[in-house]
Amino acid sequence: VTRTGRELRLVRRPQGRLDADCFELAETTVPDPADGEVLVRNLWLSVDAAVRIRLTESTPEGYLPPIGLHQPLAGLAVGEVIASRATGFVPGDVVTHALGYRDFALVRAGDAALAGAGGLSVVDTAAAPPEAYLGILGHIGLTAYAGLLHVAGLRERDVVWVSAAAGAVGSVAAQLAKCWGHTVVGSAGSPQKVRYLLEDLGLDAAFDHRDGHLPDLLRAAAPSGIDVYFDNVGGAHLEAALTALRDGGRVALCGAVSEYEGGPSHGPGNMFQIVAKSLQLRGFRAGTFTDRTAEMRSVVGALLADGRIALREHVVDGLERAPEALVTLLSGGNTGKVLVRLSAEA
Amino acid sequence: VTRTGRELRLVRRPQGRLDADCFELAETTVPDPADGEVLVRNLWLSVDAAVRIRLTESTPEGYLPPIGLHQPLAGLAVGEVIASRATGFVPGDVVTHALGYRDFALVRAGDAALAGAGGLSVVDTAAAPPEAYLGILGHIGLTAYAGLLHVAGLRERDVVWVSAAAGAVGSVAAQLAKCWGHTVVGSAGSPQKVRYLLEDLGLDAAFDHRDGHLPDLLRAAAPSGIDVYFDNVGGAHLEAALTALRDGGRVALCGAVSEYEGGPSHGPGNMFQIVAKSLQLRGFRAGTFTDRTAEMRSVVGALLADGRIALREHVVDGLERAPEALVTLLSGGNTGKVLVRLSAEA
Repeated sequence: VTRTGRELRLVRRPQGRLDADCFELAETTVPDPADGEVLVRNLWLSVDAAVRIRLTESTPEGYLPPIGLHQPLAGLAVGEVIASRATGFVPGDVVTHALGYRDFALVRAGDAALAGAGGLSVVDTAAAPPEAYLGILGHIGLTAYAGLLHVAGLRERDVVWVSAAAGAVGSVAAQLAKCWGHTVVGSAGSPQKVRYLLEDLGLDAAFDHRDGHLPDLLRAAAPSGIDVYFDNVGGAHLEAALTALRDGGRVALCGAVSEYEGGPSHGPGNMFQIVAKSLQLRGFRAGTFTDRTAEMRSVVGALLADGRIALREHVVDGLERAPEALVTLLSGGNTGKVLVRLSAEA
Repeated sequence: VTRTGRELRLVRRPQGRLDADCFELAETTVPDPADGEVLVRNLWLSVDAAVRIRLTESTPEGYLPPIGLHQPLAGLAVGEVIASRATGFVPGDVVTHALGYRDFALVRAGDAALAGAGGLSVVDTAAAPPEAYLGILGHIGLTAYAGLLHVAGLRERDVVWVSAAAGAVGSVAAQLAKCWGHTVVGSAGSPQKVRYLLEDLGLDAAFDHRDGHLPDLLRAAAPSGIDVYFDNVGGAHLEAALTALRDGGRVALCGAVSEYEGGPSHGPGNMFQIVAKSLQLRGFRAGTFTDRTAEMRSVVGALLADGRIALREHVVDGLERAPEALVTLLSGGNTGKVLVRLSAEA
């Protein structure tokens, strides 16, 4: 059987701000799986800011390579196995993998290193709906969980600042830190999001980073400083954090969305603060912590089941609207995890 | 008895490059020690770049306060107790403390927090000459030792880059890393220093950072990248390190001499490398590791006694030449530890 399906291709590299014209939807034929492969019908796609890094001609050293022109985008997805020639996978299994942005994906089993936590693996849909594995029980939850516990090394009663706290990772990190008894300050880019942080998530303080001078806003929200900064933004946010951090403070750097759309990247002008206050900065990717996935699902799953963590999703319907979803995400138009639903059945 | 002695005072705050006119030698009377104090006749003064930070009107948050105008400079010193009203100290003891830049110092016992490792303490002059406790067996040795072992967390066969490697801390760090079996690259600011690094210290590679584009020089010296960067310089050096570091690389930040003399401090433009390669940056001060002093003296003392580490000092005679010594240090005119000898007897 030869199937046809759509895939979203990169046809023009963005200069500065991304727009939807960079992409094109194309029909493609999908062969049967070869030995060691499974054929997956995708149900949900994860839209992540980090894919923006791979749309440029070259990526930072150490990072995944650029996506080729006229090649399909890649990203995490969850779908149903419809044919399998790989041990351990049978039709009907719901699996996560790293070949999103297309209707059908031909995935090689055992490619665990494809994209961080993106190896092919079966998920338990009795425990949570499929799309949860693209979010709070997937790489998003793992990033928040491992970033706080294993990178920032939370200690009792830390004051924690989470930037982009209304976003996918930020909203989980902020809620987890709150559940664990810390004082949590969140920042975001609109009054609506600040209301969400205060009213829905119950953070101790929150501010809109466009409301004034960032260091002043942070000082007002955390007058005696912070112990931990969970960085999703980079740039001026990181600079403000270095000033606000107390002696022995720690930064978990998991993204720098402020830098993804290009422009001159200028580092913090106050790097000496790192020496003066014995600060620690650690970059990380969820992929490093895949061996913590079961631990994370147990901890976060229990909080979710108890209603102590709220799930927020920004759902867009149809692969043809994935470019719009990505543009929305990069311009901060979403609250919570951005997902593309591929079929009404999902 | 009322003694008179000289002290070096700050009379003008430097704008940009330090010059000797900022200081004035003044006669002052030195009272007898009060209860809990000892009177010390200083023998040697340690000249450290970090004092430059305290000559400006305000210091970075978390750092020691500025030195007041018309107040004496402060810095580590070693001297002989000539009168004591503090338990545990008797005349004839040789002690280190933090009230340098003066002939006589009235020091309160137990002020362990005065300036990092600068609390009053007796040293063993049978094991090493007094001035060694201002260098390789003092805060300098502790900075190099703890920075490598307890901050950068050296692992087997790391490739280590030490900047300002002909300086006091750098030359000890580079030699220690070499003794422990690592591949060591050193950089410095003159051909003479580069020769010293290669011929006297036996480093694996060395370069003059003024010889070209820093990232290129570093790549030529360490073609397959580095695992650890011991940062004494900050600024463009740190930026080059972020590019050269391999996955999981670590940076120990102990100073930023490139930033001490003012000018616009711009941070690394490639901070995203920290995320992309899961890097770790940790700032530290020797003062945090004073509980490792005995451990360090045992390890470093043995290497010194075996001739596996060479001691290099840049000695200037007389308190009146301390300003010149400081200017020399900040402009990189020294090789090894800069000391001021206060009397011919020392």
